Amino acid sequence: MPSAPLENFYAVIPAGGVGSRLWPLSRAETPKFLHDLTGSGVSLLRNTWDRLLPLTGPDRITVVTGTAHEQKVGQDLPDILEGNVFIEPSQRESAAAIGLAAAILERRHPGVIIGSFAADHHIARQRAFEFAVQQAVALARAGYISTIGIAPSEPSVGFGYIQKGDELDVEDAPMAAIVERFVEKPDLDTARKYYADRNFLWNAGMFISRADVLLAELAANEPELHSGLTEIADAWDTDQRAEAVARVWPGLKKIAIDYAVAEPAAAKGRLAVVPGHFDWDDVGDFASLAKLISGGRPDQMCLLGQNDQVHVDGSTGLIVSQTARTIAVIGVEGLIVVDTADALLVTTSEHAQRVKSVVGALQESGRDDVL
Amino acid sequence: MPSAPLENFYAVIPAGGVGSRLWPLSRAETPKFLHDLTGSGVSLLRNTWDRLLPLTGPDRITVVTGTAHEQKVGQDLPDILEGNVFIEPSQRESAAAIGLAAAILERRHPGVIIGSFAADHHIARQRAFEFAVQQAVALARAGYISTIGIAPSEPSVGFGYIQKGDELDVEDAPMAAIVERFVEKPDLDTARKYYADRNFLWNAGMFISRADVLLAELAANEPELHSGLTEIADAWDTDQRAEAVARVWPGLKKIAIDYAVAEPAAAKGRLAVVPGHFDWDDVGDFASLAKLISGGRPDQMCLLGQNDQVHVDGSTGLIVSQTARTIAVIGVEGLIVVDTADALLVTTSEHAQRVKSVVGALQESGRDDVL
Repeated sequence: MPSAPLENFYAVIPAGGVGSRLWPLSRAETPKFLHDLTGSGVSLLRNTWDRLLPLTGPDRITVVTGTAHEQKVGQDLPDILEGNVFIEPSQRESAAAIGLAAAILERRHPGVIIGSFAADHHIARQRAFEFAVQQAVALARAGYISTIGIAPSEPSVGFGYIQKGDELDVEDAPMAAIVERFVEKPDLDTARKYYADRNFLWNAGMFISRADVLLAELAANEPELHSGLTEIADAWDTDQRAEAVARVWPGLKKIAIDYAVAEPAAAKGRLAVVPGHFDWDDVGDFASLAKLISGGRPDQMCLLGQNDQVHVDGSTGLIVSQTARTIAVIGVEGLIVVDTADALLVTTSEHAQRVKSVVGALQESGRDDVL
Repeated sequence: MPSAPLENFYAVIPAGGVGSRLWPLSRAETPKFLHDLTGSGVSLLRNTWDRLLPLTGPDRITVVTGTAHEQKVGQDLPDILEGNVFIEPSQRESAAAIGLAAAILERRHPGVIIGSFAADHHIARQRAFEFAVQQAVALARAGYISTIGIAPSEPSVGFGYIQKGDELDVEDAPMAAIVERFVEKPDLDTARKYYADRNFLWNAGMFISRADVLLAELAANEPELHSGLTEIADAWDTDQRAEAVARVWPGLKKIAIDYAVAEPAAAKGRLAVVPGHFDWDDVGDFASLAKLISGGRPDQMCLLGQNDQVHVDGSTGLIVSQTARTIAVIGVEGLIVVDTADALLVTTSEHAQRVKSVVGALQESGRDDVL
């Protein structure tokens, strides 16, 4: 399988979400995608760049991010073209972010194919990833909006699912199928059925299509959002950009690309899926981070950070250390300790989802200094 | 019951132990007795001073402590007489510490009665405490070595016990009895029997006797230790003190007063006990500290420290905060978090005893900086 860049294919990396279930590691100032969560030595954003590079080359990777992160994105991705960083003045969710990139790129390169890939997911097995993207791009060339659904490695209740329908006969997309439907996060019994069934894939939020096809689908479902993005995109590469952004962006609807594009397209039979047979995780909370770092072995204590002053006695889980403090943990299974300069979190894997509510409480009490 | 100082009675406060099961709060530099563990606003040592003051007056309280703590003891007890602070050049356990004080005080005030009271225990109900000490002093005047045994408030397995024998008929000691025997920390079944029996009291390590009687008992059981202490005491109030201490002290046997004096005296029928009907705790580990601060209510999260940036979600136990960091704890019962500038401990009440082993491991790895 060759790794030459795919013709006329641009990657769009929406780099917006804070990842509040990873507080206090992930903050508004340094959100999840800027962190090295896997011990690779570089950020998740840089991992994403490196993963896409063989498919696009350096000139065809774009990032949509907030004003606050422009500088750090530039530091993490020194080879990115200046014109390929699209700055959002405020967060308007994924339909606006990806739609903006699609509209700008369609103007610059009519007929372009774009693929959106989250900045803060973990993926391993590069060849299998590339194989899936190549097929998705082939489907896009054939006019489909396509997605890559992850072949489940367990009956997870933490992800939404994509149900495969009939197989498709598209050149260079040997494993493609039509999407029957999207399913929200299931309960455990249902997840077990899905896992046994093999026709259910995890929705990893990767969407690949011609930009004009995506924009047409957006126009059909969210006409106001589409026209707002069109207005901004028309002005983007002119001296009217700042004015158009300031005027139009704040009023754009906050909606996920899943609801604005993917699910309606699926309902019309226009969404194709390629199964991805690679390791994938959205690293959504500390429990999944612990699982990822431990390689799925819950019987050990994992350490994320440079701290060599950690004493573990009869404990398992994850210690994230951003300080030089000595840390001693005794007798707690599934423990999560996140030790940063100005905030400390102690919980267990079982309660990792509840971190988000602490962040909510801190917001309400005006503690923006630690968020 | 009057609170005038008891005639010819000196208090001896051995202030030596680090309290390593309270690491990282308690350190070699600032051991347990220098901390305010109960939220009283002053240290346990100062609490001890205040408790003894009505029984002795300020001129008859003595402290045996290490060179490293001389200054802080002076700060905590500004009214202590300079000559009443006995400095140990190194720790030689309680028989040496109390024996030294006894020998010095006997030379200064022949026939003196001394009572030893730990610097780092918690006691509440002052009148009941004074009533017990008054009786113990009356027993000492009658020639007994006496101890105050705490009437148990629960079937504890964390303390040693004293079994009461026949009642004694000594003036001003209406509740006195002979000590039948000492018992090491029992298992739970045995503790329950003791608790139901009412003749078993907790050994709180308080010993009251004429200094010469205590020294004679020490001479009978540990003649070398006794003669060493005699040599030092002879030189103490002369210009030979430094030389004698330097020469003799390092060779003194390390043994607890319980084994060197109390248990042998009990075996000979010379040990008397007064039941103490007051709240007592040795605050030996974070589990007992949590219990003490919560007033025995395990269904809440206690906070020791000034930090108002603590977010507790579905957790009980104890947070000790010595920093201004935001702390969030989620979903752990009986949690112990001790957050200091250079060290962090996370465990549960169940495992509070194991903190000592972490300190041991840190010692072995040469981490004296955090001990």
